[in-house]
Amino acid sequence: MSRPAVHPVDAPPMTFEAPRVRMKDVHGMPGTIGGLFLRLCQFVFAVVSLCVMTTTSDFPSVTAFRYLVAAVGLQSFWSLSLALADIYALSVRRRFRHVGVVSLFAIGDGVTSTLTFAAACASAGITVLIGNDMDKCNVNHCTKFMSATAMAFLSWFATSPSFILNFWSLASR
Amino acid sequence: MSRPAVHPVDAPPMTFEAPRVRMKDVHGMPGTIGGLFLRLCQFVFAVVSLCVMTTTSDFPSVTAFRYLVAAVGLQSFWSLSLALADIYALSVRRRFRHVGVVSLFAIGDGVTSTLTFAAACASAGITVLIGNDMDKCNVNHCTKFMSATAMAFLSWFATSPSFILNFWSLASR
Repeated sequence: MSRPAVHPVDAPPMTFEAPRVRMKDVHGMPGTIGGLFLRLCQFVFAVVSLCVMTTTSDFPSVTAFRYLVAAVGLQSFWSLSLALADIYALSVRRRFRHVGVVSLFAIGDGVTSTLTFAAACASAGITVLIGNDMDKCNVNHCTKFMSATAMAFLSWFATSPSFILNFWSLASR
Repeated sequence: MSRPAVHPVDAPPMTFEAPRVRMKDVHGMPGTIGGLFLRLCQFVFAVVSLCVMTTTSDFPSVTAFRYLVAAVGLQSFWSLSLALADIYALSVRRRFRHVGVVSLFAIGDGVTSTLTFAAACASAGITVLIGNDMDKCNVNHCTKFMSATAMAFLSWFATSPSFILNFWSLASR
């Protein structure tokens, strides 16, 4: 008995499944509009903090203020780089899904946000010491110190969602 | 035809499967020996920091030092509570797997470690200001301030793995 060389094959059923909701598509992740917005917030707050602190004449005499300038400088550089990466990802309509890239983003966010937070806390401690405890605001730039510290805190506050979302997407893959 | 009321049932196969390696069983999680060790480290460092800072006579005059005392007090209370929970879990040979309990632990660890870190950074900024920038260690308890700050940093350092492991196990479930 001869058998045909070509066998009929069941066609896959043509059902329209609802797209699966994935944790990876949350707004604020790298490569989304929300992520780009977070990066720009971080960058703007860090740059404003840097500019306000460097316009005071006596910031180099205090170690914590020099450290704040270094930390928000690093934060602004990191946030600007990631904002550019987000713009590129949005322009080619892709997301960052590679585990190495997401790990790098999560570690970088963790390190820069910790440094910025530490610098902001140290500056806040000294600003409160000068302003409230020693009451020497008449001979110091208290307002500028406070503004720079507040901007550094806001930059840290905008970095935290990026870090948490990256870390969460890394853990849940 | 009469049928018997009791039917024979296939016995489940008596195979000995190797236990699955789960992320949830990492050392350092709540309910493990490593987790208990981390909690005791956090508690001891926080209590030492609290005791060293409160033995200085002039800590209430600086806001950041008062805040450090409050933060390490909260940290020691939280770590002691979780250490007792770990001892209970170890004694009944159970782990904490309920999502609500793990969320509570992760949020509590995140809040207390952030507060302790902020207090340690503020105290460090002021200690460096007094010791290096103003060179007034002869009239201040620089050594005690430094020791209390270092202990607070160590307490934060021991809290971070607990937080990261809880957060990871929450995200990966």
